[in-house]
Amino acid sequence: MNEDLVYLDNSACTRMDDRVLDAMKPYFFDTFAVATSEFAYTMGVEAKESLEKAREDIASALGCNSEELIFTSGGTESSNLAIKGIAEAKKNDGQHIIVSEIEDFPVLNSAKALEKKGFEVTYLDVDEDGFIDIKQLKDIIGENTILVSIQHANQEIGTLQDISRIGKICQDENVVFHSDASHTFTRVPLSVEDIPVDMVTISGHTIHGPRGIGGLFMREGTPLEKQMDGGFQENNLRAGVENIPGAVGFAKAVDLVSQDENERLEKMRDRLIDGLMDEVPHVTLNGPHEKRTPQNANLTFHYVEGESMTLHLDMQGFAVSTGSACFSRSLEASHVITGIGGDHERAHGSVRFTFGRYNEMDDVIATIEAVSETVAKLREISPLGEED
Amino acid sequence: MNEDLVYLDNSACTRMDDRVLDAMKPYFFDTFAVATSEFAYTMGVEAKESLEKAREDIASALGCNSEELIFTSGGTESSNLAIKGIAEAKKNDGQHIIVSEIEDFPVLNSAKALEKKGFEVTYLDVDEDGFIDIKQLKDIIGENTILVSIQHANQEIGTLQDISRIGKICQDENVVFHSDASHTFTRVPLSVEDIPVDMVTISGHTIHGPRGIGGLFMREGTPLEKQMDGGFQENNLRAGVENIPGAVGFAKAVDLVSQDENERLEKMRDRLIDGLMDEVPHVTLNGPHEKRTPQNANLTFHYVEGESMTLHLDMQGFAVSTGSACFSRSLEASHVITGIGGDHERAHGSVRFTFGRYNEMDDVIATIEAVSETVAKLREISPLGEED
Repeated sequence: MNEDLVYLDNSACTRMDDRVLDAMKPYFFDTFAVATSEFAYTMGVEAKESLEKAREDIASALGCNSEELIFTSGGTESSNLAIKGIAEAKKNDGQHIIVSEIEDFPVLNSAKALEKKGFEVTYLDVDEDGFIDIKQLKDIIGENTILVSIQHANQEIGTLQDISRIGKICQDENVVFHSDASHTFTRVPLSVEDIPVDMVTISGHTIHGPRGIGGLFMREGTPLEKQMDGGFQENNLRAGVENIPGAVGFAKAVDLVSQDENERLEKMRDRLIDGLMDEVPHVTLNGPHEKRTPQNANLTFHYVEGESMTLHLDMQGFAVSTGSACFSRSLEASHVITGIGGDHERAHGSVRFTFGRYNEMDDVIATIEAVSETVAKLREISPLGEED
Repeated sequence: MNEDLVYLDNSACTRMDDRVLDAMKPYFFDTFAVATSEFAYTMGVEAKESLEKAREDIASALGCNSEELIFTSGGTESSNLAIKGIAEAKKNDGQHIIVSEIEDFPVLNSAKALEKKGFEVTYLDVDEDGFIDIKQLKDIIGENTILVSIQHANQEIGTLQDISRIGKICQDENVVFHSDASHTFTRVPLSVEDIPVDMVTISGHTIHGPRGIGGLFMREGTPLEKQMDGGFQENNLRAGVENIPGAVGFAKAVDLVSQDENERLEKMRDRLIDGLMDEVPHVTLNGPHEKRTPQNANLTFHYVEGESMTLHLDMQGFAVSTGSACFSRSLEASHVITGIGGDHERAHGSVRFTFGRYNEMDDVIATIEAVSETVAKLREISPLGEED
């Protein structure tokens, strides 16, 4: 990595922390047995214990028992397992599923895959800040509803849903509630002791942990049909040789996140939002001012293309992302920005800045300056620009 | 790891090669972006290029185009995707699937999961060395058959099936042929240019590569229903943030295996088998003398329990595995040993020794001695022992 690069795409992937690798190393080179060999030899016992220690540490950060947490290959797999596993396990009780229209793709496309198989899916509208209408949710839950999946926070605009209230409603209606917390776990308080949520997706690479590892919290007694068949690993809910270095690295990454760090991210986020809204005309904040993840800022710079922005910023050493069409490869503008009522122009001009451990306030100041100049330049030459 | 430990369970998991970690490091700390950010900034382009370079290197070792190889979280996921993905894609053409009765659990239990959903599965018998009957396969393929999945080599007894002939039959009958090559990839020649196989499962951690990464070869034009929904990664066949460090480490692990190494493993294998059969009475070799993987030896020491063997050997610093009941956690004796006609006693007394890069011929000599002594001691005290 170029030392001068200001990397502001920490929600897509983060730089791994050196201490995470240090924690993983013994499991590459010293204790490399599979955990299921615990019945055969000492190294297997040590491997199994390390896996269970990692599980306990992460479970404790979530407020659950370690028996309620299984490891997967990442947030995508966790959400697939949750949505499809519940649907298959409960299909005789009903075939109606509710998700929000701005869920991340693993939830959204798992729901769509189930729709093709005959399930009925309701995609809840969100308001201009990305919040679902709790009353609408309550009205839509019916006899046939088996699952509600509403994310803890949005991947693009950082909106924090009120999962306590959502969970309470699902509990009252006896419907399983899953929440994708890939973008909040350790960053925003989330204890399943306090919040009546049945399943939670968590992920390691968003918090400077390793890639290829994630987790799924499943409250005791939640029915689930296994999706990955093979051996009896992970309480017979997810087959495959255990990724012990990954699990240990994930636990270390969880341990390294602190309240201080989250407050630092929040300060950078607010400074960036305030700075850009002050200095650049025709800017819209996507997502709410309050109730957003500490690490996320997302703004639309009207009359410019997000893709031009990312490319020009890249040339100046800033890595950011956009909700524009080509970027997402789906050939559609961000479903999140259009979901909150934005038109395609607003989606195309949106830029997401996400903060992590390796960003400094100086980066933020530099980013404000670079973005202001870039927007001004692009508007000068843009056919969309009203300044033309 | 205890420096003195003789680790002979390399088929379950191998010690990672230090050079694999060296290859992975830049993707933890320097080029850590997701590959889909290639449209936004330079680091994304570099990430994407590294992923594609890893894919090309592994594809070239398999003899396929890089477009025909997708990355997964491991061999288990690859086999699940192959079996279920084909079954869903071709269910209107037929619902009959053929596997061998000694397949590894990802294939076997994926087939069983499909059986529950209404597919018909034939579990082919194997002979006393673990070979399927090619004529029987030919007879059983019918109008309704959509998929044949026969492993390249067996996970417990190392038997190498004649996948060229099997592939030819499937090709003639116009049936998709999948083969689990987790235990042969790079160890036994396998080029999909020469062998008419449509899908191949490969894995990284069996050849001193990282855990949490595997691959699936899919011949161009093979229909497949995506199993992991989410983003458009991996040619829109497998969603999830790309595990680039894992892919790069996998490619490095592939590169590090040499013909010389495989011949070295073969020599250790043969020395162990010959030594034990010479020095220990009442021993049966499980699997064939010829046509077995270079790294696998599996023997039944009659009148002793495999579990007692593993524990006593562990105390002396030897890590091996057994096909005995408790070890497998399935509460059943090895389906492989019973599959080749062995009774439960033969399964319970079976011990698997698998060799890897970090074993030396001296280890083999020491193992022969330790096993001989242990078997003699156990038979002295064993209620099963005829010497009693």
